[in-house]
Amino acid sequence: MTKTLLTKTQWNKLFPILNWGSTYSRKDLGGDVTAAVIVTIMLIPQSLAYALLAGLPAEVGLYASILPLVAYAIFGTSRVLAVGPVAVVSLMSASALSTLGLETLADYVAASAVLALMSGVLLVVMGALKLGVVANLLSHPVIAGFITASGLLIAVSQVKHILGVKASGHNLLEILSSLGQGLGQVNLVTLTLGLAVLAFLFWLRLGLSDLLQAKFGLSKQMAGTIVRIGPVFAVIGTIALSWGGDLPALGVSVVGAVPTGLPPMGLPQLNSTVLTALIGPAVLITIIGYVESVSVAQTLAAKRRQKIDPNQELTALGAANIASGLSGGYAVTGGFARSVVNFDAGARTPAAGALTAIGITLAAIYLTPYLYFLPTATLAATIIVAVLSLVDLTILKTAWRYSRADFAAVFVTVVLTLLIGVEIGVGAGVVTSVALFLWKTSRPHVAEVGQVPGSQHFRNIDRHQVHTDPSLVTLRIDESLYFANARRMEDLILDRVHRGSGQLRHVVLMCSAVNEIDLSALESLEAINHQLSDLGVNLHLSEVKGPVMDRLKRSHFLEELTGEVFLSQNCAFERLSKDPASEQEVS
Amino acid sequence: MTKTLLTKTQWNKLFPILNWGSTYSRKDLGGDVTAAVIVTIMLIPQSLAYALLAGLPAEVGLYASILPLVAYAIFGTSRVLAVGPVAVVSLMSASALSTLGLETLADYVAASAVLALMSGVLLVVMGALKLGVVANLLSHPVIAGFITASGLLIAVSQVKHILGVKASGHNLLEILSSLGQGLGQVNLVTLTLGLAVLAFLFWLRLGLSDLLQAKFGLSKQMAGTIVRIGPVFAVIGTIALSWGGDLPALGVSVVGAVPTGLPPMGLPQLNSTVLTALIGPAVLITIIGYVESVSVAQTLAAKRRQKIDPNQELTALGAANIASGLSGGYAVTGGFARSVVNFDAGARTPAAGALTAIGITLAAIYLTPYLYFLPTATLAATIIVAVLSLVDLTILKTAWRYSRADFAAVFVTVVLTLLIGVEIGVGAGVVTSVALFLWKTSRPHVAEVGQVPGSQHFRNIDRHQVHTDPSLVTLRIDESLYFANARRMEDLILDRVHRGSGQLRHVVLMCSAVNEIDLSALESLEAINHQLSDLGVNLHLSEVKGPVMDRLKRSHFLEELTGEVFLSQNCAFERLSKDPASEQEVS
Repeated sequence: MTKTLLTKTQWNKLFPILNWGSTYSRKDLGGDVTAAVIVTIMLIPQSLAYALLAGLPAEVGLYASILPLVAYAIFGTSRVLAVGPVAVVSLMSASALSTLGLETLADYVAASAVLALMSGVLLVVMGALKLGVVANLLSHPVIAGFITASGLLIAVSQVKHILGVKASGHNLLEILSSLGQGLGQVNLVTLTLGLAVLAFLFWLRLGLSDLLQAKFGLSKQMAGTIVRIGPVFAVIGTIALSWGGDLPALGVSVVGAVPTGLPPMGLPQLNSTVLTALIGPAVLITIIGYVESVSVAQTLAAKRRQKIDPNQELTALGAANIASGLSGGYAVTGGFARSVVNFDAGARTPAAGALTAIGITLAAIYLTPYLYFLPTATLAATIIVAVLSLVDLTILKTAWRYSRADFAAVFVTVVLTLLIGVEIGVGAGVVTSVALFLWKTSRPHVAEVGQVPGSQHFRNIDRHQVHTDPSLVTLRIDESLYFANARRMEDLILDRVHRGSGQLRHVVLMCSAVNEIDLSALESLEAINHQLSDLGVNLHLSEVKGPVMDRLKRSHFLEELTGEVFLSQNCAFERLSKDPASEQEVS
Repeated sequence: MTKTLLTKTQWNKLFPILNWGSTYSRKDLGGDVTAAVIVTIMLIPQSLAYALLAGLPAEVGLYASILPLVAYAIFGTSRVLAVGPVAVVSLMSASALSTLGLETLADYVAASAVLALMSGVLLVVMGALKLGVVANLLSHPVIAGFITASGLLIAVSQVKHILGVKASGHNLLEILSSLGQGLGQVNLVTLTLGLAVLAFLFWLRLGLSDLLQAKFGLSKQMAGTIVRIGPVFAVIGTIALSWGGDLPALGVSVVGAVPTGLPPMGLPQLNSTVLTALIGPAVLITIIGYVESVSVAQTLAAKRRQKIDPNQELTALGAANIASGLSGGYAVTGGFARSVVNFDAGARTPAAGALTAIGITLAAIYLTPYLYFLPTATLAATIIVAVLSLVDLTILKTAWRYSRADFAAVFVTVVLTLLIGVEIGVGAGVVTSVALFLWKTSRPHVAEVGQVPGSQHFRNIDRHQVHTDPSLVTLRIDESLYFANARRMEDLILDRVHRGSGQLRHVVLMCSAVNEIDLSALESLEAINHQLSDLGVNLHLSEVKGPVMDRLKRSHFLEELTGEVFLSQNCAFERLSKDPASEQEVS
């Protein structure tokens, strides 16, 4: 036997292409080619528009849609995820670079590529260490709030292109005040064009699908796909108009000269100060991009009863971002809209992504000359319509109804993202949800319980009609015992004992909801045991779980305990209440 | 009735002096005076030494032991806590100021006062907002590790004074390498003196108490008190020696001229850059100082069956630090050793602290001239002996035995405090313990349970002999369901169902240990319900707690649930297992 670096299974896990590639069929090719053609048509305006949003030249968007797609096709576990530039990550990239004081556009382009490279390396490292779980720190409400607020921010940031004025800013107040100052210089030709494109795109979304289905008898899927590729018609139409009417001479801003050809390859050059400043934003972009991408991939995989491997997805997205950083692109991730189109258009394997990359390469070689006359207002309108579908403020209402803690986390995320910026917004959302979780678990619910008559079941004496016994207090602690609530538990138990009658001889802690006892809590339990013993009261435990009991056995606590550990609360009650028949009271 | 700002109870709560002051007796005065005399004698060398440790002139230590004690006497709820400069907080203060690049000693003194003032304001604000709970973020093992590492760091930092060399640094490596460079310049007279004082102080601690008890028949308490005030004899003896032998001429470093008189009153002046830089350290000093002080106060109060009010303690320590900052002092808190001496010497009320303040004032007026010849080696020896009693490395062993998570938190705290510094050390300890708590709760223990024969009790099928039914899987989830584990729960439940037999019709989630279901988890439960329904399996819940149920009722989940919610797991099992008598299997 020859020695190998990895076993066959490991190779297959690392390169999922080995799995689907080995059984690739003519049928797969058919589906993949169709999907690739449609996604390419959809992706051309999107990648140009998102590059604009990221503050980058249009071609960078195309470059970010070539090699990253090939890298994902090799490493990815989702059969239909389409990676490339997306709105929220483009906004985050722009926001990260805005504070660096970069002087030249070349530096800005290099910094964007470095950000992708850093994010890629981080993703690969997280994949190797199986650290995908850190994404779990982003709660659903925080993600929903963040996406909604980012969508609003992006939409507002594009209004300047529709008005034809100069404006800047990275939060709502900055952008609005900057827009306000520019209102005097509105270019009416740009505005007319922009509004017309907006109207066309909204009609595509809201009216066209029904029309195609009703009048032309197209399937819902087919109609949906035509709607998705619709923006390309706006691009073609406005290029023709802009060229024919010489709109640039009328002050309409256009994309201008776009270099023709393949992406430049190589390591982007930057000084070390900028590199250090990019680490924080790279972490945030990495986590947000990963969470977005994995949830899209999982949703689509479930529809075909396929599975994805969240840890391998880290490696795959990492490879895509490294490829982007090395080929003149910027940060990429899996996009929702284009993955749905890919799925609906019948993509069967990740080869569809590689074929899309070929499509975009052809565009970069042959179509770039035609982009000169493309109005930026068209791209801005594309972005606005795309991101408004992300905005869903009902999450605020849902969260408010369900719990104040969830609401607080969404609210902080939405408000700070809008008023300060994306990094602070999402960071504050995570910190708020973690802090509120610690806060809640540090103030656990403790119920005094009694026996439900005729059963072996014990419930809260305040909510149910139950039997109790004056010599015995049973407290059910509804939380793991750990450092944040250890001292509070001490106070609470001793307080209850001090309020108890003179007959009180036993305190039972019912541990059915205690999932852990850490060292701080153990020390508190020892203190409680000691202090109750001074008062002539024995401390007992009931329903201690296996893993918790295993741990307690490693300490001296069980030897020092003045009472016993009962398998069930019922055993504890039967044994400790002196005469269950005569003395029980129904409270 | 006249309107008042506060009710009488509120006045009494804010000024505990109104309680004990109104019943103050001659007997109280006797105890308090005795205690005050002894604590004053003990506090003089301590306050000089800790000022040295904090990088401050000796008199600052005295100033920090006057008005802060009066402030605490007015606001404090502990009858015996003795506040003033303490070792760990002095080290933290020095560490915070070392990075500011302050040019003059006057600036350094002012910055120390500002740090006390900030910490005081922060404490008062926390008291007003009842935010004492934030101290709970410091787990017992992290505190123990931090105190131990700080003690080692302090001891090593004082070795330079014993050797009579110059050295600096704020972590172990810096100090040791700095000491190594100075080894050529060791002053033998200083070294001899330093070692002699060290030997004397160690003998005080280790030998004197037994001697006094055995030979002179003193009580253990009395002997302990004499041991505690012993360092003052070393101070007197070495002052005499230094003056008589003109040791400064031989290169022995002495305290030098100390201003005589009352502390200077007023707001310390500092520029705003320094102010901003001090906020972070002030927060840390505040929390560490508070935790230390409250735990000393609680331990001593419990011995006399008294109670302290942790929130009022915030106000009291805040007032003490504000008083210190305004009267030329620096950060103070309740000290362990001196509070024990105060307690043992019979202090009965906080008036003992006020009387101690008078003693220190007299010292500041009349004794300062004599301090000129006091060798710094004497003070360093005092510090070394005092802090070595804080060092207790067994916490590492205890934590290792009990749980790896607790060990990791202590280990990180100890190692980073020693190698990098106190702020990073304690900060990393808190972050580690919080991160590990999130990590643990994000990977909950899930047990498949069955009925313990002949009971209504359900336990883990892997640990107990229990009844199960093939049409029914019951999973007991041993954790609250929240954002960090919501997605994992989805995977886990669906995995179990996919592994189940074709007979499987019901999944019961036993929620006895589920203390909360947040919005993220609710969305995951909805997804699970939906996906199980596709597989023809019903989802049920059992033993849902009151507060959790209240919340679920505010959502649409219960309406969409394909199964039922059972009061007890036993009801669920009886109802759902088709024929309990015949089909149950003992696994």
